[in-house]
Amino acid sequence: MTAKLNVVPFVSVDSMMKLVLTVGVEKFLTELAGYIEEDFLRWESFDKTPRIASHSSEGVIELMPTSDGKMYGFKYVNGHPKNTREGLQTVTAFGVLADVGSGYPMLLTEMTILTALRTGATSALAAKYLAPEGARTMAIIGNGAQSEFQALAFKSLLGIDKLRLYDLDGSASRKCAKNLAGMGFDITICSSGHEAVEGAEIITTVTADKQYATILTDNMVGSGVHINAVGGDCPGKTELHRDILLRSDIFVEYPPQTRIEGEIQQLAADHPVTELWQVMTDKAAGRKDAKQITLFDSVGFATEDFSALRYVRDQLRATGLYEELDLLADPDEPRDLFGMLLRAEQAVAKPQMAT
Amino acid sequence: MTAKLNVVPFVSVDSMMKLVLTVGVEKFLTELAGYIEEDFLRWESFDKTPRIASHSSEGVIELMPTSDGKMYGFKYVNGHPKNTREGLQTVTAFGVLADVGSGYPMLLTEMTILTALRTGATSALAAKYLAPEGARTMAIIGNGAQSEFQALAFKSLLGIDKLRLYDLDGSASRKCAKNLAGMGFDITICSSGHEAVEGAEIITTVTADKQYATILTDNMVGSGVHINAVGGDCPGKTELHRDILLRSDIFVEYPPQTRIEGEIQQLAADHPVTELWQVMTDKAAGRKDAKQITLFDSVGFATEDFSALRYVRDQLRATGLYEELDLLADPDEPRDLFGMLLRAEQAVAKPQMAT
Repeated sequence: MTAKLNVVPFVSVDSMMKLVLTVGVEKFLTELAGYIEEDFLRWESFDKTPRIASHSSEGVIELMPTSDGKMYGFKYVNGHPKNTREGLQTVTAFGVLADVGSGYPMLLTEMTILTALRTGATSALAAKYLAPEGARTMAIIGNGAQSEFQALAFKSLLGIDKLRLYDLDGSASRKCAKNLAGMGFDITICSSGHEAVEGAEIITTVTADKQYATILTDNMVGSGVHINAVGGDCPGKTELHRDILLRSDIFVEYPPQTRIEGEIQQLAADHPVTELWQVMTDKAAGRKDAKQITLFDSVGFATEDFSALRYVRDQLRATGLYEELDLLADPDEPRDLFGMLLRAEQAVAKPQMAT
Repeated sequence: MTAKLNVVPFVSVDSMMKLVLTVGVEKFLTELAGYIEEDFLRWESFDKTPRIASHSSEGVIELMPTSDGKMYGFKYVNGHPKNTREGLQTVTAFGVLADVGSGYPMLLTEMTILTALRTGATSALAAKYLAPEGARTMAIIGNGAQSEFQALAFKSLLGIDKLRLYDLDGSASRKCAKNLAGMGFDITICSSGHEAVEGAEIITTVTADKQYATILTDNMVGSGVHINAVGGDCPGKTELHRDILLRSDIFVEYPPQTRIEGEIQQLAADHPVTELWQVMTDKAAGRKDAKQITLFDSVGFATEDFSALRYVRDQLRATGLYEELDLLADPDEPRDLFGMLLRAEQAVAKPQMAT
């Protein structure tokens, strides 16, 4: 991108919005899903670790690193459900892609918007392998910041065009419906979770409370549906009744992390789950029959952010939608960091003497 | 700093150099050591973890998080010894300080220069508790990017004013001596490690090779000296002969990390060491007598970076040496991230229609 060693390309929130709008949201989601799938297909080449979480009474701050041996990526992300009451985002994020060979960062980007996009893209990607064939109708329970991204990702990748929205807070559902107006959906706002799941082949749960909740009870889930459980994503935060898990075939991203954070924290540590990458690489079966309940217990894994960072980086040259950040010290002589400091002093002093 | 929720103050390399020069290097090191000491004194209030390392054949990329329950900090840092051959820095770093209550980042800063400063400050701080009283002479073996910062920190905190420099590469020693000229040191460039340690009360080893090396052999270390071992800081990278360790009283930052990365990786996992914070809080003895060999097996710990981030943040208001980075998405309504994207489209489209 640049020969200036001190400079790291930076994608601000403003640049990210322009990038998404320039590419187009649906195309962005589709292409991003392609990058995510690519990385799931080479799952074994990644250095994987559960994210490193720092919990407090009000939320969590996490670092999510991974590497494919050539590039290294990490995301900083917080989760503070009470934030919305103070006019702040529940989740904010930024991330860095770096060159493994030199250790030098090659991209710094906002990831609040990007995380919303990659979460939607990952959910839809998983559903491509797991949802009943020909599905057109999706219930979305929880109509907050992530809901529209889920809807559009499922439209782009699976052709979902009927939405049944439900949120405890009706204004959230109306916000979601309004935002998606004119985008090709037939939208029904529902007054209960029970109503929302009627006729839905896919059920997406994406609520934000940091607690054990029961967004879906067992009687709400009929045979053959695919459940896309997005909201349960940290210890003590789940959305589904345990009985649903016991009736479902459960698919996860990275078991060591999902067992800590996902719906399956409600189950025994050895409860059988299938890894998504194994389905994608034909090492394990996805959906086997029309009556099966499939559950994608999504918590969000570092490789998905890595894919998103790769995708954004690949858009920089064509779009020019980035700034140059003076992030890395670059002395004339690499071992002379202190000399660089001294010369900066002279550079500051000299012009003053000249005038 | 600002009421704009999307904005995070950013200290670039240029701003950091100006900040150090505005405060003055020695005052910066002294004040920074004060912040580091403050945090060592409340050691037990920190959430501590060994850094998370991603190793490759050519180097390592690490994340170093910690939190005191109110603020959360992390540093990204790489170590690639071969980089200098390609005109790059061995170590580059940047870091973030965040608010635990909201999870929002409150500072992003370069940390290549800042790490050099905090490493020097930490070494000198440890020596304040461990070095023989009245020490004036320090040998520095390894005269690369870190050497001047060590020298100035020891001058500021302990009054060291005689330096004996040695490096395999004589030009590194000359560079170090030239950079420190006129700063109040009596400097001798030596032609061997043996010559360098002659008469030195403090021996600082700060070489960069990623291998088991023997910068100090047992016969080079006389009774009563303080060894400040800075260069051995990752698995497979040490500087001291094992026999020296067996004759020394060893002081470390955070044992679980030092046992992996420090000189003591050469010793049994239960070899007795003393934690620096315990010396500082009078829970353990530091130097007990004039003949004792004390060894600070320094690897650099996350709390020191946390202290450095705190210090830099506290300088922002008075100096104004930062930029505003548009890093965090800030929708008018926090749950309406997608709506923000839509409105950005309108904001782009409208002015075009008006003209």
